[in-house]
Amino acid sequence: MTDPRYFRPNIRAMQGYAPGEQPRDKAYIKLNTNENPYPPSPNVFDAIAREANDDLRLYPDPMATALRRKIGQVYGVPPEAVIAGQGGDDILNLIVRACAGEGDGVASLFPSYTLYATLAAIQGARMIDVDSVEKLTDVDATVYFVCNPNAPTGLWTEMAALDALAPELDGILVIDEAYADFAGRTCIPLAIDHPNVIVVRSLSKSFSLAGMRLGCGISRPETVRQLDKVKESYNLDRISQAVALAALDDLEHAERNCRRVVATRDRLKRELDAMGIEHYPSQANFVFFRIADAAGLKRALMDRGVLVRHLDLPGYEDYLRVSIGTDPEIDTFLEHLRALV
Amino acid sequence: MTDPRYFRPNIRAMQGYAPGEQPRDKAYIKLNTNENPYPPSPNVFDAIAREANDDLRLYPDPMATALRRKIGQVYGVPPEAVIAGQGGDDILNLIVRACAGEGDGVASLFPSYTLYATLAAIQGARMIDVDSVEKLTDVDATVYFVCNPNAPTGLWTEMAALDALAPELDGILVIDEAYADFAGRTCIPLAIDHPNVIVVRSLSKSFSLAGMRLGCGISRPETVRQLDKVKESYNLDRISQAVALAALDDLEHAERNCRRVVATRDRLKRELDAMGIEHYPSQANFVFFRIADAAGLKRALMDRGVLVRHLDLPGYEDYLRVSIGTDPEIDTFLEHLRALV
Repeated sequence: MTDPRYFRPNIRAMQGYAPGEQPRDKAYIKLNTNENPYPPSPNVFDAIAREANDDLRLYPDPMATALRRKIGQVYGVPPEAVIAGQGGDDILNLIVRACAGEGDGVASLFPSYTLYATLAAIQGARMIDVDSVEKLTDVDATVYFVCNPNAPTGLWTEMAALDALAPELDGILVIDEAYADFAGRTCIPLAIDHPNVIVVRSLSKSFSLAGMRLGCGISRPETVRQLDKVKESYNLDRISQAVALAALDDLEHAERNCRRVVATRDRLKRELDAMGIEHYPSQANFVFFRIADAAGLKRALMDRGVLVRHLDLPGYEDYLRVSIGTDPEIDTFLEHLRALV
Repeated sequence: MTDPRYFRPNIRAMQGYAPGEQPRDKAYIKLNTNENPYPPSPNVFDAIAREANDDLRLYPDPMATALRRKIGQVYGVPPEAVIAGQGGDDILNLIVRACAGEGDGVASLFPSYTLYATLAAIQGARMIDVDSVEKLTDVDATVYFVCNPNAPTGLWTEMAALDALAPELDGILVIDEAYADFAGRTCIPLAIDHPNVIVVRSLSKSFSLAGMRLGCGISRPETVRQLDKVKESYNLDRISQAVALAALDDLEHAERNCRRVVATRDRLKRELDAMGIEHYPSQANFVFFRIADAAGLKRALMDRGVLVRHLDLPGYEDYLRVSIGTDPEIDTFLEHLRALV
């Protein structure tokens, strides 16, 4: 055994973040990790082919200059207000490292994205869960997370509520918009209006690029400068930078895929209503629904070749989360669900 | 201005790591960031073309299973002894986060890779510099870095010395082998022999893949399990994993390029000797040499289209580091050097 003295007590005590299953043994209908069922823009493949050349021997641009300019154009902010990262997770990680020291508070809604608690544990910070956005003002933290729409519920918090919240907080308010494109709304203006707001975006879901790990943070330039100190200097490789640029050059492709996912999601919600199955009114690319023996049902669906997620969160043990697949995939899911309940 | 209260005092106080210049304005002979002058294996491009498909919409394998198996085969260790990362820097970062809390000591030789001090500063840990490997036993730290061969000197520390050092340290000994392939030696056996040794490897230099950010750590499985808790779950995207596998499948290509770089390095050392220029006996893919008005000479070389690195480290202000390019590139460098000194 490794002598425990070699590792920090908070690291020894913690569990790592548990990602959803990525089974390789057979072909499943994969509705467990909120991936987009439609492929990324064809632009992406052209960009990869162009970038696959001998220059791979050279370091990438550490500041991702062209990509940050593009992100700025797309979201209506200057490039200095953008930090590019290896998925939204990279940015969430930088924020916690820059702002939460040992013993500091890190606050989030519960339930929400479980990575927030993992990042706090790595720092030796204290995770504080609250059950509504309003209650965030009651707790003392250096970082406040609002996932919007929230995971796994899919609930959207209105921009007006966050606009009112930000000045009340004596810490950074992180608005995690990984799923915002499926809500058709954004709180990016708040990242410029307030000195303590960072909006985090991802290309994993709405741009169908989970396999490439691309995201960004948007905030005032003075905040981006602090986060830049913590980021790995070369956090985005050459191909990743080119892929992100190409994907953002074809917004129409992503928007079309989002519309298809939203249409399927809304149909699924109606079908669940018709079956009398309770669920949250999701604005994201998944639906969180209540069902008896959720763990057993998850396994039964897996036996039938359909993966969904049983997060098994305290108080939400009888909920499953199903990601929005193609229409035929959701039909298959519903067919098995009807047979099993 | 951002209210300083939003960031940890150690983050506000620190400077970020300064990577070498990556100018895009014109074509330079780039001898400033230790890149390999020869292209990566053709296997790499085949792998990229295969991986550029619709599966980019899906998350990558979080455990990089196939890649870790391959790394294990290449270096003669079980896959459980391997953690794959986004460059060696990713692994260095994980180690410091897992082992060094606020106020803990992080020790390194001086001069050495300046990122170690940046990683310590991000944690709020204390950086301790010593001037020889032997003196590492005199200082109290949770992480001890030995870059081998060292940067920027290129000096190799014998395995026997590190074998004797490890049991004397009450912390983790990190042997950073980013440049070891140019020395034709490795200390990987120590990573299994001792409970507190981690060897860090990189594909940036000897495999000509700086642009892809690939590396790994090798240590006992119980140590890898602790580091896994800190790593981003999906730290290597789909294309990166495929590229690393393909590169490691063509060891002969990398070995051939290393031999060419070593031959050019040794010729450069002889030429510097002939010019009476003092330099360290480098075992890496760069040479650190002493010269009057180093800062001025670096600028004069840049004006003539040749980039070298002036690290400007305390006590080493009159040194420049030149990376090993192709033979014609080094000839051009020498020609300008002769004209300028």
